[in-house]
Amino acid sequence: MKFASLKTSSRDGALLLVSRDLSHAVSAAGIVPTLQSLLENWDEFSPRLEDLYQALSAGKAPGAFAFDPAAVTAPLPRAHQFVDASAFLNHGDIMERAFNLTVKKTPGIAVLVQRQGDEFRGPRDDYPFPTEEDQCDFEGEFAVITGDIGMGSTPEEAESQIRLVTILNDVSMRKHLFRELSMGFGFINAKPASVFGPVAVTPDELGDAWANGRVELDMRVSRNGEWFGHPNGREMDWSFGELLAHLAYNRNLKAGTILGSGTVSNRGYEQVGSACLAERRAVETIAHGKALTDFVHFGETLRFEVKNADGASIFGAIEHRFVKAD
Amino acid sequence: MKFASLKTSSRDGALLLVSRDLSHAVSAAGIVPTLQSLLENWDEFSPRLEDLYQALSAGKAPGAFAFDPAAVTAPLPRAHQFVDASAFLNHGDIMERAFNLTVKKTPGIAVLVQRQGDEFRGPRDDYPFPTEEDQCDFEGEFAVITGDIGMGSTPEEAESQIRLVTILNDVSMRKHLFRELSMGFGFINAKPASVFGPVAVTPDELGDAWANGRVELDMRVSRNGEWFGHPNGREMDWSFGELLAHLAYNRNLKAGTILGSGTVSNRGYEQVGSACLAERRAVETIAHGKALTDFVHFGETLRFEVKNADGASIFGAIEHRFVKAD
Repeated sequence: MKFASLKTSSRDGALLLVSRDLSHAVSAAGIVPTLQSLLENWDEFSPRLEDLYQALSAGKAPGAFAFDPAAVTAPLPRAHQFVDASAFLNHGDIMERAFNLTVKKTPGIAVLVQRQGDEFRGPRDDYPFPTEEDQCDFEGEFAVITGDIGMGSTPEEAESQIRLVTILNDVSMRKHLFRELSMGFGFINAKPASVFGPVAVTPDELGDAWANGRVELDMRVSRNGEWFGHPNGREMDWSFGELLAHLAYNRNLKAGTILGSGTVSNRGYEQVGSACLAERRAVETIAHGKALTDFVHFGETLRFEVKNADGASIFGAIEHRFVKAD
Repeated sequence: MKFASLKTSSRDGALLLVSRDLSHAVSAAGIVPTLQSLLENWDEFSPRLEDLYQALSAGKAPGAFAFDPAAVTAPLPRAHQFVDASAFLNHGDIMERAFNLTVKKTPGIAVLVQRQGDEFRGPRDDYPFPTEEDQCDFEGEFAVITGDIGMGSTPEEAESQIRLVTILNDVSMRKHLFRELSMGFGFINAKPASVFGPVAVTPDELGDAWANGRVELDMRVSRNGEWFGHPNGREMDWSFGELLAHLAYNRNLKAGTILGSGTVSNRGYEQVGSACLAERRAVETIAHGKALTDFVHFGETLRFEVKNADGASIFGAIEHRFVKAD
């Protein structure tokens, strides 16, 4: 199944089912009003939603209409828990080499950072930020959205509660990032609102590409219409289930928890490029002694998309313009 | 006004008004069902709630019943944003002296850490944790709960959106804390679920003690019935408005944002004691070369309460027992 949330006067939006080919949508209101409510009551509502989804994808759902990615906000418009991982060690390794960082990692324990869930932005919304001096960057990521996961769950138990998969652009302000990292307490001004793809999908929509608790597909990133990178999710150093189990060590994770992968990054970055500017700038710094690529200027457009083996878009595209805040 | 949330099958609880003396409560369901909904629509609902509150406090509200702090969960049972500050610099100074920490603070910028809001615990709930080896500690704090605060708000604008004030015990697992701090990305296993006081109150309930964007009252902490400390909120090095404006620099803060003060800590700690174990242990380490006070054992009870100048409890007490997780 594929889900989106229509922008409405409600802060939780209105739940839509979207056809497999992303061409059409239908209101799920007759079954359950919001994605948050569905996640809290998955077993109760998902069978009827599955029937409606099959009808929609076959062109037989009454009330279906053309799906417009500009009319939706994030699939889960707000969340009570959003955690972002840095689960591609290759990314951290490049950053540390380029900028002589000393991140004291504990071997075997992933870096995870607690984040705000009060406002996410939609896939086609303009993205306002105050000043280019903040060094605006993007990070193309995969994310999962879960049901309830009890304290002390194993990776297998946690993975079984992954209800949905989606993509995000984890917008980052690099000027604030190193300062905030060095304080130890994670990100505040370095990580304003995150931007999610048009739809979130059940793992079965990924077919064989949902493997080992990872999304084994390319994250295709372009900047102003030009290729920027297409690193693959298979090199994630921990599975989503392993990351969730680490989070759940001494607390329950409640339905609607979102866990991001961290920027997708591959060891063969010379060939596949990067999913964020900071990494390309780090690669340039290692090669040339200085970064050659600019941070994001006002007016630029970023695009993130994931396709299956047949070339079909799975989540739809994040495609958004960065603008000066009022 | 004073608000609580009755435990129900709904994850958002059911909104109660609680009388000024905390003796009685009445359902607010006829006006607005949950505290989250009230925070999103404050101007619409608060006048009728104010009328009901005055009637309740005068013993004239139909349907009023005895208020039971064991029947409620956190006033806001879950939140889309929970940020905790470390706004009493004295606390950090003691910790750094005792343990030779090198936190690279930026002068003038407060330490803030993004936290999870998916599950809070109620004021009388047992608190389960896996093992005493995790070095269980408590932190007595003040917190505010806000309406919507727009990107770029000034401290004054942000302070005007503070709707409610409450208290919390920010339970901390010290074994994980120093390791996670040294990684730079904030807290995961170091900070499991936080525990809130029975009620949250509008700032006017504090009278003159709500001053300079601070709660100028003692946080009274006892451990197993014995005094542990009573540091005062007036020594907070930033006002809540200043902290909120820093958070809102490049993003909107949405209604229902919770901001904690950090553990209350005073320069005269020899007289007033501390609101957390780590600080007392640090003071002991500086004085005696080693900590003398144990971390929390299973079966212990902690209590946190704030009284006004007349000796009346403002928020009710957090009084909870720590137990071994199943």
